[in-house]
Amino acid sequence: MARIDGRKYNDLRPLTLTPGCSLYAEGSCLIEQGNTRVFCTASVEEGVPFHKKGSGEGWVTAEYSMLPRANRTRSQRDISRLKLAGRSAEIQRLIGRALRSVIDLRALGELTITVDCDVLQADGGTRCASITGGFIALALAGKFLRDGKYLKKNPVIDYVAALSTGIIPLDGRDSPILDMCYEEDSSALADFNLVMTGAGSFVEVQGTGEGRPYTADEFSNVLRVTTPALQTIIGRQKEIVTL
Amino acid sequence: MARIDGRKYNDLRPLTLTPGCSLYAEGSCLIEQGNTRVFCTASVEEGVPFHKKGSGEGWVTAEYSMLPRANRTRSQRDISRLKLAGRSAEIQRLIGRALRSVIDLRALGELTITVDCDVLQADGGTRCASITGGFIALALAGKFLRDGKYLKKNPVIDYVAALSTGIIPLDGRDSPILDMCYEEDSSALADFNLVMTGAGSFVEVQGTGEGRPYTADEFSNVLRVTTPALQTIIGRQKEIVTL
Amino acid sequence: MARIDGRKYNDLRPLTLTPGCSLYAEGSCLIEQGNTRVFCTASVEEGVPFHKKGSGEGWVTAEYSMLPRANRTRSQRDISRLKLAGRSAEIQRLIGRALRSVIDLRALGELTITVDCDVLQADGGTRCASITGGFIALALAGKFLRDGKYLKKNPVIDYVAALSTGIIPLDGRDSPILDMCYEEDSSALADFNLVMTGAGSFVEVQGTGEGRPYTADEFSNVLRVTTPALQTIIGRQKEIVTL
Amino acid sequence: MARIDGRKYNDLRPLTLTPGCSLYAEGSCLIEQGNTRVFCTASVEEGVPFHKKGSGEGWVTAEYSMLPRANRTRSQRDISRLKLAGRSAEIQRLIGRALRSVIDLRALGELTITVDCDVLQADGGTRCASITGGFIALALAGKFLRDGKYLKKNPVIDYVAALSTGIIPLDGRDSPILDMCYEEDSSALADFNLVMTGAGSFVEVQGTGEGRPYTADEFSNVLRVTTPALQTIIGRQKEIVTL
Amino acid sequence: MARIDGRKYNDLRPLTLTPGCSLYAEGSCLIEQGNTRVFCTASVEEGVPFHKKGSGEGWVTAEYSMLPRANRTRSQRDISRLKLAGRSAEIQRLIGRALRSVIDLRALGELTITVDCDVLQADGGTRCASITGGFIALALAGKFLRDGKYLKKNPVIDYVAALSTGIIPLDGRDSPILDMCYEEDSSALADFNLVMTGAGSFVEVQGTGEGRPYTADEFSNVLRVTTPALQTIIGRQKEIVTL
Amino acid sequence: MARIDGRKYNDLRPLTLTPGCSLYAEGSCLIEQGNTRVFCTASVEEGVPFHKKGSGEGWVTAEYSMLPRANRTRSQRDISRLKLAGRSAEIQRLIGRALRSVIDLRALGELTITVDCDVLQADGGTRCASITGGFIALALAGKFLRDGKYLKKNPVIDYVAALSTGIIPLDGRDSPILDMCYEEDSSALADFNLVMTGAGSFVEVQGTGEGRPYTADEFSNVLRVTTPALQTIIGRQKEIVTL
Repeated sequence: MARIDGRKYNDLRPLTLTPGCSLYAEGSCLIEQGNTRVFCTASVEEGVPFHKKGSGEGWVTAEYSMLPRANRTRSQRDISRLKLAGRSAEIQRLIGRALRSVIDLRALGELTITVDCDVLQADGGTRCASITGGFIALALAGKFLRDGKYLKKNPVIDYVAALSTGIIPLDGRDSPILDMCYEEDSSALADFNLVMTGAGSFVEVQGTGEGRPYTADEFSNVLRVTTPALQTIIGRQKEIVTL
Repeated sequence: MARIDGRKYNDLRPLTLTPGCSLYAEGSCLIEQGNTRVFCTASVEEGVPFHKKGSGEGWVTAEYSMLPRANRTRSQRDISRLKLAGRSAEIQRLIGRALRSVIDLRALGELTITVDCDVLQADGGTRCASITGGFIALALAGKFLRDGKYLKKNPVIDYVAALSTGIIPLDGRDSPILDMCYEEDSSALADFNLVMTGAGSFVEVQGTGEGRPYTADEFSNVLRVTTPALQTIIGRQKEIVTL
Repeated sequence: MARIDGRKYNDLRPLTLTPGCSLYAEGSCLIEQGNTRVFCTASVEEGVPFHKKGSGEGWVTAEYSMLPRANRTRSQRDISRLKLAGRSAEIQRLIGRALRSVIDLRALGELTITVDCDVLQADGGTRCASITGGFIALALAGKFLRDGKYLKKNPVIDYVAALSTGIIPLDGRDSPILDMCYEEDSSALADFNLVMTGAGSFVEVQGTGEGRPYTADEFSNVLRVTTPALQTIIGRQKEIVTL
Repeated sequence: MARIDGRKYNDLRPLTLTPGCSLYAEGSCLIEQGNTRVFCTASVEEGVPFHKKGSGEGWVTAEYSMLPRANRTRSQRDISRLKLAGRSAEIQRLIGRALRSVIDLRALGELTITVDCDVLQADGGTRCASITGGFIALALAGKFLRDGKYLKKNPVIDYVAALSTGIIPLDGRDSPILDMCYEEDSSALADFNLVMTGAGSFVEVQGTGEGRPYTADEFSNVLRVTTPALQTIIGRQKEIVTL
Repeated sequence: MARIDGRKYNDLRPLTLTPGCSLYAEGSCLIEQGNTRVFCTASVEEGVPFHKKGSGEGWVTAEYSMLPRANRTRSQRDISRLKLAGRSAEIQRLIGRALRSVIDLRALGELTITVDCDVLQADGGTRCASITGGFIALALAGKFLRDGKYLKKNPVIDYVAALSTGIIPLDGRDSPILDMCYEEDSSALADFNLVMTGAGSFVEVQGTGEGRPYTADEFSNVLRVTTPALQTIIGRQKEIVTL
Repeated sequence: MARIDGRKYNDLRPLTLTPGCSLYAEGSCLIEQGNTRVFCTASVEEGVPFHKKGSGEGWVTAEYSMLPRANRTRSQRDISRLKLAGRSAEIQRLIGRALRSVIDLRALGELTITVDCDVLQADGGTRCASITGGFIALALAGKFLRDGKYLKKNPVIDYVAALSTGIIPLDGRDSPILDMCYEEDSSALADFNLVMTGAGSFVEVQGTGEGRPYTADEFSNVLRVTTPALQTIIGRQKEIVTL
């Protein structure tokens, strides 16, 4: 028995990366991963946050938000509740850490790059798509800074992409499945987000037992099957932007 | 001497209306007017706000927001400042009034339709584009309700569209120009937003003297030259959705 | 048949302007228009907002608020809801634009004048009363700056006043009526706010079809009948303050 | 040597109580005490806060706020800072306690009366003026409920008024002075607020050593000299409203 | 008949002062007064608030908060309601005033000391315990500054402690009782908080009639019986820290 | 070369679990892990959040906060910034997921248990200590519900504890070290938080490359060395509470 949309356990959803989706941002990319769509822009501003003042280093930060009707039902805007959704806070911290892991902050100098990831449509995997697409926006902003002679080199020093993998009952046993859509995600026994660099190392791995705890072996298995898929995705990034 | 982008005073920018831009919303439309792009969704929910409870009538409301990098420079998100931008508050009230003017609230019954207008890219005229595109989203949601037998008829009873017109010095005299881009808007002497129904009447007109006050004659002239352009735009709406 | 309070269509309500209602503000005026009462103060402070820093120009801004029991029923304070009412945001932007239209910002130098309009009692037309009364507060603050030798001349260069006009069924046909009280406002088919300078030009016109859309002819008619009434009001302003 | 405005240590400032200052509130009073002016309204609403639900008792609460230019310099509105000023929070709790002390909550039934005290002009003693003036508004609202047959009797069962007394150096020794204006308040060694009922007992006494601590004897002396002044003020209240 | 926990009217609850409860704060003290427990820290920071800039003087401020389950039932955190509880605002202003009364702000120089009083468990008298325990934290921070040669002398110049006293029916007549626990506090006819210095003078006295007003004589009596108890508490402070 | 405090790579810090630290909470535990101290309470309330209404199931949620002076320098309270710290939002979501993984929500019925984790002192590993200590509070609350006959059985069905492990250069090679203190955490190349049940499976694993990415082998190694330490900690939990 196959997955809900007929994919095999390690099939990825169709992936489209559209760089330059914004006329004004220094770097931008619309990422479409199945029905998930995230509008990513990278904005360069002078100056750095307080904790970096005078360090000679720059900063990269991320903001993540969903349009109110990105989901099957409408959600209130953060500003209507006067609170940033806890889930968004958690996700944008993850995106920020992932993107900073491939930046040479010293080469950036005292500039701040803010990567905005606004989810237009959410069908699972939005945090991973935000990292994969946000990276393109960031790398294009780095290229913009180098090509415009603002910086001597692109401060982005490696690729980084992310993918969600779940464990669900498939063909009679609990199996990892890659790149879950929303419906799969809702019923997964465990849910993993892996963030990998072009060099093949991890900068962030998160695994949550939703339906039940998972074993160290299951965890290793998830890493093993997800790694080649992440390499494929990074391959797609390389087609869009050369560092 | 022509306008900054070579248009004549009464030329409109290229207009693209893409209905169904959201997989989940009951109605949706991406409107592109020159470089201005607004992502509009209409979401149907049961129940009505407090002031309509028990009235047997429904409600239509609008929310307007700009993505942080919709403009030439990045803006903070509302939630970062913990305040809805005053400008957004003003604009979403205008959009709501405009859309409610073509709704039969009694035919809608105790449902609420929220029209979200999220500006992806801003090159002038975003509030008018939000009304024109938001109308398509709303009308499609009405059609959805009728076609799905939730309602006996589409509660949307007429078309409504909006256009901004400015007064600028052109060929030696102060002249009205239609459908201003950002750069024109910044230097206009006066700025008008006209909201017209399919029946050719106005539901909202706002005129602001930016560089100087304007006369009643200038105002009449603006109405005269903008009316046929609004009829053209409404013609485009009719190609997309039949009431 | 006459209006609800016996007035003719173009009769104004009794208007009282009390300058100097505040002991401390650089300029102040209590305006009473029928039962509507707005307490207006103009406060001068050194410095200008960020977007004017270093420009050599000053700034004028307005804040509008209603006391909790200004209306027939009590409203929560903004601070209790932690949100500025959308309606207040819209109105204070209108007041600010209107007052700035008669200021020579260069003559003001890098000072900010904040005009606070606090509605003590609301019986219709509070935004227009705020402009008319706020102008007196502003002009007196300008006079204070000139008389105290802080500035060489009063930076206020013209008068500005506002009036609301509606369209209601009167004597068997839809007719414009001037200076609506709350009860008239609630049942008006269309509602116009006109802001005119001493020179007789408009700096802001807003027309909203509440019960039905309105035609260009109706609009012209509203302008025609409101203009002389605004001249009368400006006459009253001239009795209070000479520029 | 006399006080700054020539008064003797136990002279009160001119006091004017104007009942009915609001057309809409169930009870209202403008209190003017020297240059201090507070606009007080009492609003009756059905229902009670959560902690009183089903108790058969009503509730009385107070809100206190200053107009932005009530003082010598302009203050930001609470809503601009998104925080109720700590000082206002403290004061409105004091006013609420004082007013509740003379209410028979059972006789009130499950109604809430909110007393709003908005300071138009502040020249010292605004919290005390709010209690004295707020009482009139409250008592008039109680009368309104009884006269309108909503309640069998006025739930207000006694008078309550407040006065501030300070200790300052006067004629060579530290002396109590009654009803301080702002300038006296700023330089007082100690500052007392006394709230007394018509029956001559205290419902609240607060004494703060500003410049230095004070002795029990000094405290007793303050009570002794302030009591007759409070009786005078309550006499003024009795001229306005009979319970 | 004795008090609920068998104490006599003037018995204090067991008092434990544990200095140094925080490893990092410049001064700290855990105060346990019966079941009431407050964790007090004093933090020294460079700079002063706006109103003290350039004065050569320092500042002392206090913040007061209850852990969500300090009470018999859980309360929402302030941040969940987005509002500082009015009660906390009132209390922390009281603590700040009390502590500043024994500080030589000039000797402190342009430093700010923030005393945080976080209530771990609340069984009545938390504001008084916060003053008594917060004083120890403050005095230890002052000692830290002197011993570390940051200042020439400890800017804390006297002791200060607080105690709550109530009036309740006891043995057939209304009697003062010292150091009330929560249950006594809930049924007290009147409630007094006295703040006294080592020199035996008062820096703050607050008396509230909860169940009924109180007379000047009752007030004097409260001061008389509470004074020796406050001297006892200050004696305990002296065992912990020498100025 | 040993670790900064002389421990071996797999030595844990001294661990003290003090159950019943709160007199009022249904379950509570003070956890001390080295210098890290977290005050944990579990509060039972009737009812469930909106998304669980009518499901017959209960809910467990967590809130995490640091006292302002828990760290080496003082931080502003969330309420002063009007924003929950993003870090706190992320952590309390992690704690909530971890605790829910060992709860039988159906056995809990429509009750909500809120586990508050307030950090009194922070020396690294506060999120893990919050899970380990919060579990004790939760399990004691479950026991309270069962012993008090509110529920037939303790809804807590397994133990859960957490530990942080880092990778740092030690004795010439990059090695995992367990239970990092703050200083170690600040300089770790990678940082892992593992949450394990009594049954030995994982409910949450998070690994972040701080100084550099990490390999799948390094990850496996971290799991291998941390597992026995987590078993030790769970052994300590079993001494405190039996399910």
